[in-house]
Amino acid sequence: MSSSSPVLLVKSGGAAALPEWRASFHEFAPGLGLEVCAWDDPEVDPARVEYVLVWQPEAGRLARFPNLKAIISSAAGVDHILADPHLPDLPIVRMVTPETQQRMAEFTVMSSLMLLKDMPRIVAQQARAQWLEFSTPRTALETRVGVLGLGALGLATARMHATIGFDTAGWARSPRSEKGLSCYAGADQLPAFLARTDILICLLPETEDTRHLLDADLLRQLPRGAAVINVGRGSHLCLPDLLAALDEGQLSGAVLDVFDEEPLPADAAVWRHPRVLVTPHAAATPSRRERARQAAVAISAMLGGLPPPHLYDRARGY
Amino acid sequence: MSSSSPVLLVKSGGAAALPEWRASFHEFAPGLGLEVCAWDDPEVDPARVEYVLVWQPEAGRLARFPNLKAIISSAAGVDHILADPHLPDLPIVRMVTPETQQRMAEFTVMSSLMLLKDMPRIVAQQARAQWLEFSTPRTALETRVGVLGLGALGLATARMHATIGFDTAGWARSPRSEKGLSCYAGADQLPAFLARTDILICLLPETEDTRHLLDADLLRQLPRGAAVINVGRGSHLCLPDLLAALDEGQLSGAVLDVFDEEPLPADAAVWRHPRVLVTPHAAATPSRRERARQAAVAISAMLGGLPPPHLYDRARGY
Repeated sequence: MSSSSPVLLVKSGGAAALPEWRASFHEFAPGLGLEVCAWDDPEVDPARVEYVLVWQPEAGRLARFPNLKAIISSAAGVDHILADPHLPDLPIVRMVTPETQQRMAEFTVMSSLMLLKDMPRIVAQQARAQWLEFSTPRTALETRVGVLGLGALGLATARMHATIGFDTAGWARSPRSEKGLSCYAGADQLPAFLARTDILICLLPETEDTRHLLDADLLRQLPRGAAVINVGRGSHLCLPDLLAALDEGQLSGAVLDVFDEEPLPADAAVWRHPRVLVTPHAAATPSRRERARQAAVAISAMLGGLPPPHLYDRARGY
Repeated sequence: MSSSSPVLLVKSGGAAALPEWRASFHEFAPGLGLEVCAWDDPEVDPARVEYVLVWQPEAGRLARFPNLKAIISSAAGVDHILADPHLPDLPIVRMVTPETQQRMAEFTVMSSLMLLKDMPRIVAQQARAQWLEFSTPRTALETRVGVLGLGALGLATARMHATIGFDTAGWARSPRSEKGLSCYAGADQLPAFLARTDILICLLPETEDTRHLLDADLLRQLPRGAAVINVGRGSHLCLPDLLAALDEGQLSGAVLDVFDEEPLPADAAVWRHPRVLVTPHAAATPSRRERARQAAVAISAMLGGLPPPHLYDRARGY
């Protein structure tokens, strides 16, 4: 690769991940002529950087690449990029792959079934080597799942839940019609959606409107004994309100994959709550190979003058 | 109810469960004229007992009811009844309800996804309040599930796995053809079935042939890093062989719901194995109401001279 080739800088997985990123880009985009370099590589001339694939870039850093053409998020959300007050006005591509959708649907179905079967109790019993048989009152067929947010991930999640028998509904900002799915829309229909939801799955985008949407007032509108799965963003959930609702019996359980502060600090009380399963932002991380493939697709599209798939829309906020 | 009404004796859930059994039989079989009594009720004349609904009846006890017409198992398996050396030669009805099939399919899909997402690791991390992100290499689409046993429960399990994307096959004693499912049959095809199975789900009936079928020799025929879910009977699995295969790396994980000795003793090493999830025979226990409904269906059929559904067949062994 000549020293004048355009550079794709990668900030995801650290130096140890670079060989895998390079091999995958070589596999999927051998014709793009891109040199793949590490975010912290001091040898790279900033003027050569045309693309970045990033998770949580430091504030101001993206503005220092004069020939940057596009920013590719290493995740489905882009809030970690928008947090930069000096963010240049460039296309931002969200990392949504068919694999991401499958992974998210699998993770949420697993979580719903774990809540239905009371796995928090079974896990605690195993930790005490305690055999206590019990039966759970319902199957998926009598359990109403509600998916907040019907983007690519929310829709895949809702569909897989419906497939295995859950009575599934979705809520979106604007009216939708999806086969096999009860759709609710807008603030007006949110109360009716919540009142029929035994397991609430949050897959909203992070916007001004959605910050702390899952607070005491919203949780109170769920049927007593409902459960919550948060796989959106930590900011969607008011964690103290959720813990209070669990302790008070309004909620029976939760699976939480995202938090305001990640890594979640070791002294956070939620780690030790007996009704909460904490997972380390594990819901839908695609393999590096799959992310490289999707980034290559996006760069190829842009080089050909086409809009890349899953372009972030500033007006919609996702 | 007159003192000459026929009696249904129930041994399942103890004295505390009797009011629920009575209410459910009253709901589903008000016209059968049965009096529902507890197994240990000293007031019941043995000559009045025509039906029993039982889990692990004491040896010799069933032979003491001279007018017994049928034995209804409170579970899908009947090994706990066949263990009685003085068992009278009467129809035995297995407890297989549509709900049982749904529950078993849900439990096994949950277990497969938990193994795919490495939930044993995530559970252990939560116990230490430790946030370590990691990505798992595959989705269900690249994961081959194999169901050993294609009875009502095995078939429902295989179908639900296929529905959410797992590459699913089944093995049965005799040749089968099921839409969307690769079917293997007999001892000849068992090696080929095992060689293509990343997650093995055991749902065999308990017969002479299946005892300790899952031993070191069988586990060695799975691809390296495979996982095992046992929801059949404890006797299907040679537990020391499974633990050795986990420690040696041949297996990557297991979900075990059934054991030779239940309750599993507190000093059993398997409780503390970091790659094993132990669940307390929880896979598919239907609610009492659902079991009462199914028992009422079986008794009504027999009173009408029809064979009840899921009659145990001594020749087949299930």
